[in-house]
Amino acid sequence: MIGVFDSGLGGLTALAELRRLLPDADLLYFGDTARVPYGSRSNAIITRYAQDIINYLLGRGCDRILAACGTVSTVALPALRKNCPVPLSGIVEAACDAACRATKSGRIGVVATAASIRSGVYPREIGARLSGAEVTQNACPLLVPLVEGGFVARNCEITHLAVREYLTPIREAGCDTLLLGCTHYPILTDIFSDELPGAVLINAGREAARAVAEKTHEHGEGRTELVVSDRTQDMEKVCAILGGDLSHAEIHTVSLSDYADRE
Amino acid sequence: MIGVFDSGLGGLTALAELRRLLPDADLLYFGDTARVPYGSRSNAIITRYAQDIINYLLGRGCDRILAACGTVSTVALPALRKNCPVPLSGIVEAACDAACRATKSGRIGVVATAASIRSGVYPREIGARLSGAEVTQNACPLLVPLVEGGFVARNCEITHLAVREYLTPIREAGCDTLLLGCTHYPILTDIFSDELPGAVLINAGREAARAVAEKTHEHGEGRTELVVSDRTQDMEKVCAILGGDLSHAEIHTVSLSDYADRE
Repeated sequence: MIGVFDSGLGGLTALAELRRLLPDADLLYFGDTARVPYGSRSNAIITRYAQDIINYLLGRGCDRILAACGTVSTVALPALRKNCPVPLSGIVEAACDAACRATKSGRIGVVATAASIRSGVYPREIGARLSGAEVTQNACPLLVPLVEGGFVARNCEITHLAVREYLTPIREAGCDTLLLGCTHYPILTDIFSDELPGAVLINAGREAARAVAEKTHEHGEGRTELVVSDRTQDMEKVCAILGGDLSHAEIHTVSLSDYADRE
Repeated sequence: MIGVFDSGLGGLTALAELRRLLPDADLLYFGDTARVPYGSRSNAIITRYAQDIINYLLGRGCDRILAACGTVSTVALPALRKNCPVPLSGIVEAACDAACRATKSGRIGVVATAASIRSGVYPREIGARLSGAEVTQNACPLLVPLVEGGFVARNCEITHLAVREYLTPIREAGCDTLLLGCTHYPILTDIFSDELPGAVLINAGREAARAVAEKTHEHGEGRTELVVSDRTQDMEKVCAILGGDLSHAEIHTVSLSDYADRE
């Protein structure tokens, strides 16, 4: 069984891609909806929260785990891998590969959460793949609340305004490629395209799902299970926005407090 | 010692008022910055998180507690009071008293988090105080992320746009009084005033602090202690926005996992 997790429901974009690529694999998704968002928190807390989730997924028998969360992938992955007995991948590497293949000018924009941008992982990983690349990055703290709050329609003025402001340095740098370094952001693809016309958008969650699918030869019963740490009245609506055709998945709620390493 | 808590740092607006009114009381503030925001979560999770904080405050010896959190005050207070051996107050009652004193037309607007609005507490409490009152309420899920993200300047276009949209039904109902039912919102007082000119704004946290001060005859050493569950790089900046002259308080970090009732 493959485990996929995110701070909230954004990682469903990656799960949907994995479902499409591996129709008979068993997939278990964990969304930490009781503690979303992660991107504004400290590295120590992000690492602890992700460890709780991994403890749960291992307990359920996952033999491969995808951190479909930009924040966890950028600030916590090396520490988490040390304690993880099964392959654990994030969304950074596949996304950087794709961005470097896509760019013609070498000028690449990156949007992600505050914690991801602060980590400096994207300029470092892109620089290692494409010498002379110029990376312009910007933190977008409002975009996760906007997506989770349902402000996702192409004509939503407030989301346009936020995206326009966040893309200003990237537009001014003349980037021809925009790496969406948070799995919530692909939901805003139309708005990103409107605000940065002509740029190639890289969907980090989808790239990561493809990389996982290439390494996997698992055949199961094609089950999809969604587990969340809090079940709100709006959840079905947000799942519908994010998850594509996952509407027939089983959904249930698990408290992570039993999976925490107490201090 | 008086304990004051909030999901995040918004309750510092109430703490500052309490500090001013009770200069020699000892005040202990807890901000659950590792799990903020609460207003988009389920009632069950909100109640559990607030219980963890109360467990901590009781363990520290608080003999009176103010839930300076609109969400906790509206959805969890009766359940929390059952297990609380010291007086526990919220922000609803004092705010409704003040709104009913302020209105001339009887048309009162209420803005708060999604969970608070869903609870129906404000129309019920205002109706019990002022027969014939017409309450128009609206949930404002983006305002806590905007405040915590620092989008608080009077000329911030995105915050104006959000507030304008959220106030539309309240403006159309002709309300002369606006109850700010979340302790983050007083930071946006100028923007609310611009978008609803002439209305009296009720600061729920400040009213609640006054009500607590009236009941308290405590004399201590005038200490102010700030405890948070996550310490981020931006915290000092947010404290400065919210806390007024609390800059000399001691600040430290405590993990709530040791105060959780395991399931």
